[in-house]
Amino acid sequence: MFDPITLLLNADPLILSALREDITSEDVSTNCVLPEKTTGQADLLCKQDGVICGLPIFARVFHLLDPETIVTFDVNESDRVSSGQHLASVTGDMRVILSGERTALNYLQHMSGIATRTRSAAELLEGTGIKLLDTRKTTPNNRLFEKYAVRIGCGHNHRYNLSDGVMLKDNHISAAGGVKAAVEAARTYAPFVRKIEVETENTDMVREAVEAGADIIMLDNMDREAMQEAIRIIDGKAEIEISGNVTEDRIRQIADLDVDYISSGSLTHSAPILDISLKNLHPLD
Amino acid sequence: MFDPITLLLNADPLILSALREDITSEDVSTNCVLPEKTTGQADLLCKQDGVICGLPIFARVFHLLDPETIVTFDVNESDRVSSGQHLASVTGDMRVILSGERTALNYLQHMSGIATRTRSAAELLEGTGIKLLDTRKTTPNNRLFEKYAVRIGCGHNHRYNLSDGVMLKDNHISAAGGVKAAVEAARTYAPFVRKIEVETENTDMVREAVEAGADIIMLDNMDREAMQEAIRIIDGKAEIEISGNVTEDRIRQIADLDVDYISSGSLTHSAPILDISLKNLHPLD
Amino acid sequence: MFDPITLLLNADPLILSALREDITSEDVSTNCVLPEKTTGQADLLCKQDGVICGLPIFARVFHLLDPETIVTFDVNESDRVSSGQHLASVTGDMRVILSGERTALNYLQHMSGIATRTRSAAELLEGTGIKLLDTRKTTPNNRLFEKYAVRIGCGHNHRYNLSDGVMLKDNHISAAGGVKAAVEAARTYAPFVRKIEVETENTDMVREAVEAGADIIMLDNMDREAMQEAIRIIDGKAEIEISGNVTEDRIRQIADLDVDYISSGSLTHSAPILDISLKNLHPLD
Amino acid sequence: MFDPITLLLNADPLILSALREDITSEDVSTNCVLPEKTTGQADLLCKQDGVICGLPIFARVFHLLDPETIVTFDVNESDRVSSGQHLASVTGDMRVILSGERTALNYLQHMSGIATRTRSAAELLEGTGIKLLDTRKTTPNNRLFEKYAVRIGCGHNHRYNLSDGVMLKDNHISAAGGVKAAVEAARTYAPFVRKIEVETENTDMVREAVEAGADIIMLDNMDREAMQEAIRIIDGKAEIEISGNVTEDRIRQIADLDVDYISSGSLTHSAPILDISLKNLHPLD
Amino acid sequence: MFDPITLLLNADPLILSALREDITSEDVSTNCVLPEKTTGQADLLCKQDGVICGLPIFARVFHLLDPETIVTFDVNESDRVSSGQHLASVTGDMRVILSGERTALNYLQHMSGIATRTRSAAELLEGTGIKLLDTRKTTPNNRLFEKYAVRIGCGHNHRYNLSDGVMLKDNHISAAGGVKAAVEAARTYAPFVRKIEVETENTDMVREAVEAGADIIMLDNMDREAMQEAIRIIDGKAEIEISGNVTEDRIRQIADLDVDYISSGSLTHSAPILDISLKNLHPLD
Amino acid sequence: MFDPITLLLNADPLILSALREDITSEDVSTNCVLPEKTTGQADLLCKQDGVICGLPIFARVFHLLDPETIVTFDVNESDRVSSGQHLASVTGDMRVILSGERTALNYLQHMSGIATRTRSAAELLEGTGIKLLDTRKTTPNNRLFEKYAVRIGCGHNHRYNLSDGVMLKDNHISAAGGVKAAVEAARTYAPFVRKIEVETENTDMVREAVEAGADIIMLDNMDREAMQEAIRIIDGKAEIEISGNVTEDRIRQIADLDVDYISSGSLTHSAPILDISLKNLHPLD
Repeated sequence: MFDPITLLLNADPLILSALREDITSEDVSTNCVLPEKTTGQADLLCKQDGVICGLPIFARVFHLLDPETIVTFDVNESDRVSSGQHLASVTGDMRVILSGERTALNYLQHMSGIATRTRSAAELLEGTGIKLLDTRKTTPNNRLFEKYAVRIGCGHNHRYNLSDGVMLKDNHISAAGGVKAAVEAARTYAPFVRKIEVETENTDMVREAVEAGADIIMLDNMDREAMQEAIRIIDGKAEIEISGNVTEDRIRQIADLDVDYISSGSLTHSAPILDISLKNLHPLD
Repeated sequence: MFDPITLLLNADPLILSALREDITSEDVSTNCVLPEKTTGQADLLCKQDGVICGLPIFARVFHLLDPETIVTFDVNESDRVSSGQHLASVTGDMRVILSGERTALNYLQHMSGIATRTRSAAELLEGTGIKLLDTRKTTPNNRLFEKYAVRIGCGHNHRYNLSDGVMLKDNHISAAGGVKAAVEAARTYAPFVRKIEVETENTDMVREAVEAGADIIMLDNMDREAMQEAIRIIDGKAEIEISGNVTEDRIRQIADLDVDYISSGSLTHSAPILDISLKNLHPLD
Repeated sequence: MFDPITLLLNADPLILSALREDITSEDVSTNCVLPEKTTGQADLLCKQDGVICGLPIFARVFHLLDPETIVTFDVNESDRVSSGQHLASVTGDMRVILSGERTALNYLQHMSGIATRTRSAAELLEGTGIKLLDTRKTTPNNRLFEKYAVRIGCGHNHRYNLSDGVMLKDNHISAAGGVKAAVEAARTYAPFVRKIEVETENTDMVREAVEAGADIIMLDNMDREAMQEAIRIIDGKAEIEISGNVTEDRIRQIADLDVDYISSGSLTHSAPILDISLKNLHPLD
Repeated sequence: MFDPITLLLNADPLILSALREDITSEDVSTNCVLPEKTTGQADLLCKQDGVICGLPIFARVFHLLDPETIVTFDVNESDRVSSGQHLASVTGDMRVILSGERTALNYLQHMSGIATRTRSAAELLEGTGIKLLDTRKTTPNNRLFEKYAVRIGCGHNHRYNLSDGVMLKDNHISAAGGVKAAVEAARTYAPFVRKIEVETENTDMVREAVEAGADIIMLDNMDREAMQEAIRIIDGKAEIEISGNVTEDRIRQIADLDVDYISSGSLTHSAPILDISLKNLHPLD
Repeated sequence: MFDPITLLLNADPLILSALREDITSEDVSTNCVLPEKTTGQADLLCKQDGVICGLPIFARVFHLLDPETIVTFDVNESDRVSSGQHLASVTGDMRVILSGERTALNYLQHMSGIATRTRSAAELLEGTGIKLLDTRKTTPNNRLFEKYAVRIGCGHNHRYNLSDGVMLKDNHISAAGGVKAAVEAARTYAPFVRKIEVETENTDMVREAVEAGADIIMLDNMDREAMQEAIRIIDGKAEIEISGNVTEDRIRQIADLDVDYISSGSLTHSAPILDISLKNLHPLD
Repeated sequence: MFDPITLLLNADPLILSALREDITSEDVSTNCVLPEKTTGQADLLCKQDGVICGLPIFARVFHLLDPETIVTFDVNESDRVSSGQHLASVTGDMRVILSGERTALNYLQHMSGIATRTRSAAELLEGTGIKLLDTRKTTPNNRLFEKYAVRIGCGHNHRYNLSDGVMLKDNHISAAGGVKAAVEAARTYAPFVRKIEVETENTDMVREAVEAGADIIMLDNMDREAMQEAIRIIDGKAEIEISGNVTEDRIRQIADLDVDYISSGSLTHSAPILDISLKNLHPLD
């Protein structure tokens, strides 16, 4: 799940920044009607079928505002949930519940949307032995949450950012003067714990990549025939990633190919939210 | 457009944070192959029809990394663009272009996606006299960019956050002990430049809101009949906002009603990106 | 009072920054004589008559340094206090009390000074039906505390900042090409929850503002005759704010006029502090 | 004057924070009427007699928003200025002038108010050989500007904060078990470049302080007779600071005493602003 | 060298923080004697033989304080330098030179010290085919500079931090229940661009690591015999890293072994500085 | 010891920054094998003889990650420790122990290294009456920890930074036009709690410094004869600091001289770490 160290060191500053984006001076509406603390409770309700993701972030929003807020979940992270389902109760200072509601839901709905779309894509791949990967096409300042949601949706993470992986694209290759030169430059320069991935656009590039000793070869926008030829050339000497959207059509095209990964940007950049809302806030006696 | 003061004070810190999310120590791949400055140029190409939005942010990413980068646009912010269209040229240190590319595109694609969806929804409303509004259902730490994209897409902005508008929802109303008490509490407390909006779920609440002197009344999830009754009760004494998704069906339902606004969260939380890419990076002699 | 969410999200960073302004490496004097924790107690004493304001901030300074510090108040926020009165006891690590003392008092004295001056001004207005407003003429990085102190002093807050209110001044009006054009531009652009205020300098501008549909009209530096004429022109179609210092003379001039608000910058920018001190620190056995 | 290194390292973050306090998303009013850059000019006018202070900060506000803004001063920092005097012209993007105006004036008015009050107090001391000192009773997050304003007003600065001076007050002394022990602890602990100051309340404490070798002795709230006795005891073996407000009465009391310094908190915590405004903004052709 | 993107995004905040560590309010000594700008020049002189490293950081310190400062180098980054050698001239506002001197030298001396020690160690390895690696044993908040200095000293970088490499140590292995389980857990979880390294303490662990398919195997504190046995077991199926200090003795022990890397913490945590100073500051006419 | 206020206000931000330097997204290795909380315990073992320093920082690293971590020390700060000695037990979530280990050790080893070297130097001075001082030659962003380690090692701190001490070096003196002018400028400008130190290179400068009334005179790089002459000139009218490395040879040279301080940069910039490690992490039942 979401480990507590990442939550504290890397997620908290972003969550606090999101809260400050929504409350630059005060929550005027709440302060109009609730000048004092009143303990209350609200229900988190699912309004759409999907995969739930982001429960620790949802809870954290309220805990950052008031550590005494109690969030009790009826579901587990990564569960399938359905419209109408009661997901959680939030109990605490009603001002905290009202002020944190939107930020907590914005995270939960967005992350659940990504997990839901990823799960669907991953299911299309079931039985093929091909793993689903995300990309760096994430929403700015949300990569931590979105890459996590991909994992919850049964996808895998490609490199986290430009600092933790070597991926030589066409531009790097031409700058280096060819695939071979680029891979050698990478071998010389890059921290030694990293694999070297080369993005290829045709079988000539694939051949060069294999000869240069690339650890992973990405087949970018190749048709089925080209991919088959590439696989023959690679012949187990490197892992293979293919890129593109994971649609049913696309899956039929690749399902029987001997590749390792398929990566898709739309998991993170175009997943609609999963509709979830906080309802029935009422004071507790 | 995006005013330079907001860009500097409020957008820059977020853009820099996004860049640091992608480059925590260095761009390893680029440093492998480009140890020294080489001036190059790349083309920004549209791969899908839509409304372009975020050009100043796209350029700013590169200018923050290196003020000498030149971004020349062939289109204007808010233009309709079509697949295959050449949108801009980026000229400068190839390392800067490679390192900034993903962050620049992530903003541009996301903002253009929102502007495109907003424009479609706004067009459905053309001729009705009803204005399209966004909500606070935005992606965390991206509200500034998303609300701007809504305006570029011909929508209007609802309040920016909890600090700059009074919106009394069911929970506020019950906490205050009724619509009347809530509106009075708001009048007493809230900074005087603000209008007071009340969210109503039935015609009884509408009646109370009118009597309490609400400036804006939101009709939440009412059917056509209830809305018609609400409009009669309000009788021009308050502005009227209805909430909900802007689909063709929904529009038919409300097009001839005398309401002022319709608000939709999906403009910002569920718009898929507009596909745009940076291609053909090549050194300049 | 000071709500806990604003305290945590918006006040804490400023309070911590103030503490770091006073302790850039260590409290040398305290470390000379108190190398180890010793529990002690001190008395908060009032040395001048006035209105107390900032008790939650005073306590917060110590709680941020050490959550175990106990601050027990003998008075309530917004109480009138008098010279010699015992206001509170502070109990805890003597090093924390010594190191936090100055910052805690600087806030408390400054906020109480503003509340005291505001209360005096508000009392001059009693019975007139005119409400007292503050302005944006606040001490940099202290607006949150100063606007709150105005409320505690029985004043009301004008807009919080440039982002949450529309106020069209002479410069905006001339830039737009007249009052009418400015108000229309505001109606088109401004987030719809906001009222539009126009600052006028003569009755012609007042007339234009009324015709343009301004929600609030400010009469800036007008004499009694001009104000009377302006009120006739406005005729209940907009709220009226007059600006200027709230002196006894000025009040006599305006007390019987049918205006809604009077705003005064001096509440926040020129109130002397209320003298308060922390005394009798002694170890507890 | 205000040195450029302090401005950049220590003042800029505070000025930017003040600007962000005033513009959390955008300057709505300005964006309503000035969607595009228009070059304009405004006049900085003095509306009250006093000492001008903060010109570099006033200019910096605009330069931070737009380095191309030109601020031309007709006066020098620390000049006496009089009501009606033209102080400066500001030329640049009218949006920048409108958006920065309030923050720039808030600093300038506050700093000039402090310099004005300090100059008056310093003049009362002229001919006495006694120097005027400020204290740590400053407005939170404004110490840098306020201590500078004291210098511009011909005062001198006491220690900047708790980290750069040793001042042993009653509480430190009792914690250490007497003046002698406290001074010895300070000698052992404190960084060696610092003088050790002891606050004394009676002549016994003065005697102990002298014997302990204090470098500076503060006479706190002593009457004339006690001060005379203290001076005899000290007999040139330490510098002498007396505390208290600098009123004409007080000066008469101390003018002929052989003391070195008088410190006053009111210089920074209770000086009313000097009234200054930015007027006549107009577009340049 | 030090790429400009990393400098701006990742080094600048640390350099500014270091400058603020040294100047919390102002450079008192400089402000005493240099109230106004005076252009001057100083010489950077080497006082010890070694490898120079950190020239771009040295220059950046001054450029951050004042972009008009001119730093002209007589040597190139990574050059061998000798005692007495003139390394650079710094020309600009003398206040900037005085205020930035210590921070600039602290970086330059520390980085050159690391590069010098690394170069010595790397030379001991010449001809062996074994590459020298650093570790994560760096000085807090200086990793960026120290890992760079290792590269300038002809060493290579191990992983940058805990987020960009998988290294399974004894504790991870026991938590997982054995080498095999740990490697499998890593394969399932870890972003796919990473190699998996296993730290082994004996040949049994080596055997398991090979069987589990580890990409890199670290031989921790093994004697020559154990290492030889380990190499036989690994038999080219994984890269081999040995850990330990790089002394002449140790080198003799391992020089003829078929291993790939030797890692040493002392490169970064125990290198003495290279003595360098800034001299002869004088005004220019 | 390390006072809790400095820890919270000034050390915590640096420690958190160091943790984020090591964990930019997550601790991949730990998350591979420990998806859930498991309570465990590890031993802190000394691997070299020396002086232990930084125990509160070591513990703080873990407490910041998880306040429930228990660190039990077997030794006291500043104790002499020897190779093989058990220093502490760390008990808590094993993920926290694994993720915090490196940062905690990096601080502890570095600070203990400095304390150890300082103690050795201080011992060489025993019986001479000369006190050992550090300098501002510290590792960037580590001054707080390094100056503290010097104190733990029985050294004393020179000024903390450029803002809290006046030290007039050759460059300041020539800028002012001589020693006398420089000291006078300092007297006029500098906050009055500070002593004025002058760095001298020959006996002429010493004479001038004495005449100008310097509080402290530093003898920079003088030979024994010059120092003797300088001491005669100063004749008790100022404190005397000599600079240079504290070697046995150097001590013999100066041991019988009547000077107050000797300062040495190598205490902080060139001390090798003290080798300490965290071992035997095992789950608790």
